[in-house]
Amino acid sequence: MRDVAVVGVGMTKFGEVWEKSLRDLFVEAALAAIDDAGVDHVDYMTVGCMTSGLFVGQEHLASLMADYLGQKHLGACRVESACASGGLAFRTAFTEIASGMSDIVLAGGVEKMTDISGDGATYALAAAADQEYEVFHGATFPGLYALMAVAHMEKYGTTREMLSAVSVKNHNNGSMNPYAQYPFKVTREQVESSVMVASPLRILDCSPITDGGAAVILTTVDIAKKLGKPFIRVIGSGVATDAIALHSRDDLTTLKATKVAAEKAFKMAGKTIKDVDFAEVHDCFTIAEIVVSESLGLFEPGKAGEAVLKGETGLDGSFPINTSGGLKSKGHPVGATGVAQIIELVKQLRGEAENGRQLKTDPRIGMTQNMGGSGGSTLVHILEVG
Amino acid sequence: MRDVAVVGVGMTKFGEVWEKSLRDLFVEAALAAIDDAGVDHVDYMTVGCMTSGLFVGQEHLASLMADYLGQKHLGACRVESACASGGLAFRTAFTEIASGMSDIVLAGGVEKMTDISGDGATYALAAAADQEYEVFHGATFPGLYALMAVAHMEKYGTTREMLSAVSVKNHNNGSMNPYAQYPFKVTREQVESSVMVASPLRILDCSPITDGGAAVILTTVDIAKKLGKPFIRVIGSGVATDAIALHSRDDLTTLKATKVAAEKAFKMAGKTIKDVDFAEVHDCFTIAEIVVSESLGLFEPGKAGEAVLKGETGLDGSFPINTSGGLKSKGHPVGATGVAQIIELVKQLRGEAENGRQLKTDPRIGMTQNMGGSGGSTLVHILEVG
Repeated sequence: MRDVAVVGVGMTKFGEVWEKSLRDLFVEAALAAIDDAGVDHVDYMTVGCMTSGLFVGQEHLASLMADYLGQKHLGACRVESACASGGLAFRTAFTEIASGMSDIVLAGGVEKMTDISGDGATYALAAAADQEYEVFHGATFPGLYALMAVAHMEKYGTTREMLSAVSVKNHNNGSMNPYAQYPFKVTREQVESSVMVASPLRILDCSPITDGGAAVILTTVDIAKKLGKPFIRVIGSGVATDAIALHSRDDLTTLKATKVAAEKAFKMAGKTIKDVDFAEVHDCFTIAEIVVSESLGLFEPGKAGEAVLKGETGLDGSFPINTSGGLKSKGHPVGATGVAQIIELVKQLRGEAENGRQLKTDPRIGMTQNMGGSGGSTLVHILEVG
Repeated sequence: MRDVAVVGVGMTKFGEVWEKSLRDLFVEAALAAIDDAGVDHVDYMTVGCMTSGLFVGQEHLASLMADYLGQKHLGACRVESACASGGLAFRTAFTEIASGMSDIVLAGGVEKMTDISGDGATYALAAAADQEYEVFHGATFPGLYALMAVAHMEKYGTTREMLSAVSVKNHNNGSMNPYAQYPFKVTREQVESSVMVASPLRILDCSPITDGGAAVILTTVDIAKKLGKPFIRVIGSGVATDAIALHSRDDLTTLKATKVAAEKAFKMAGKTIKDVDFAEVHDCFTIAEIVVSESLGLFEPGKAGEAVLKGETGLDGSFPINTSGGLKSKGHPVGATGVAQIIELVKQLRGEAENGRQLKTDPRIGMTQNMGGSGGSTLVHILEVG
């Protein structure tokens, strides 16, 4: 297997972007990544997108995006794993290079979520759950994560205050991210007086509906060295699934797909969680960050909430989580999120994170955890300074 | 790069299957392939599906299908390239093994197209075209392929009779395929008196709307040998794109993505079209088979129609095409089609094609060509007896 590195990153500002279409968002991010890498071509492209079919009536993104990138005959591939589509695009690009099939690959993610009217976005996102056994009966994602939150509170005594602390921390980080949809701080009081969505989750516990694109350029370590620019090695990649429906899981308070994907990535990297300096994880809801942190083995089950409260996962904490602002503050264009997580890792590992959110600990190894639906699929990646 | 082989195949009967859901179709095909291969597990799974979101409101197929296959924590990936999603699932599985990331991979494809009502299927399929510049203005796929047919007739003198000959040939082959949706013969007169869809294409020039699943098991050649069963090597894989919209192409009478994908696959295999014994190609419309045959280099531009008329691509011809019955007779569940093409190759190369359609020439090398939309993406694979 060939060694693979990330040599360029680029993304659009996340937000409610009325003046740009699905293709515009992808191409803007892709060109920024190509510029950053300084490559003069790519051999292959992967496009992560959850459901452009339901959002804007468009599939066949391999063709569309290669075309609009001005690369009509490029080999390309669209992948989907609900909200983990971006992570899957990254893994598929990694494998394409590791196998020797291609040398330089663009891994991009995109979603245009705000063109759909009425409750269309809720219907489209619900396609990540079990249509026949969950959605048909009225379940939506805030409801499913609310079930997890209630179960976690019941089993471990996780509190409202702990959920709020996740939102406050991530908005604090995101306030320093020029690409964030909501780059402002929130207080505990604001979180706890925000409108209720699905008890106990309030609107400031939820990641937003977002338009955005993100892209990275991967290549072999050999080519990366020749480019003469800083590069970041991909040392671990893990993917796993779980029952798509929450009612079929063994336990609501842990995410088994995250556990298994992390085990695979750690095994491949020859590392443990103790070797990792920081992480970007999938905080689609505040409770998700807590459950994910525990499922990754970072904290004992039931202990993550307390750790957030104590600031252990803050910018100056022992294990910073979501320095980018996470999905909560940065925004969550579902197909782009997994790639945007990689971008934050690369920026932190290069020492280039903007506006004072750069970690002062000289981080060497970071990891991403990107999940689909209520945790039915998960991608974990581990990156190390080259 | 590790050598890869196909060791098992399985598919559902194609058709209008009211009693089976999207997940049922996939699992039935997957279990059949696993049984055929005689493997006791798989390490990874790829799922090709064009637009389950628009057809049945369901995305996140990696999780759903792993779950319903009884493999809750399996690593899995859904890929989409419109009607070439099956071919892309096969390539992604190939790369997964070639890279060393996984040893035994299930590549499946599925589509459930008949649950949607009214003109829903036409809208869903149109998501493979350019939504903003084609679909919005009323273009549908029969219309786009009709444009190609008219251009080909105008430029090369291709005739109505030649189009009919494709349909007659493929229905003849499909009449011997127990998995075909329409396993019956048609006559030239029946084709030419069938209802007009988009001039000059009549209903018997068009592949049908189909429900179905198809799956194959790939592994390393080393493991294939240990299994002690016949196996088929994957010696070439090529993927390419073209402008998604027909009006942006250089030429309507050739398919550039097919040309480029085939060149890549031939280069990888170290072969030319002259080394290949037979092919399954993407005859979504009769004109498509003619244009594809020329784009693959099998016939000079403008000469394929005459070759079909002369029987050169028939079962006893010098280069049989679509021995399975093709999309025309076998049916076209868009996400499954590319995998079903591989299955026909494997059957022919093993000498196991049913009901008298087995080639009598002891074929050693076959190829598939699977394309998305009006040719905006294409996957070409070359397989050889192990």
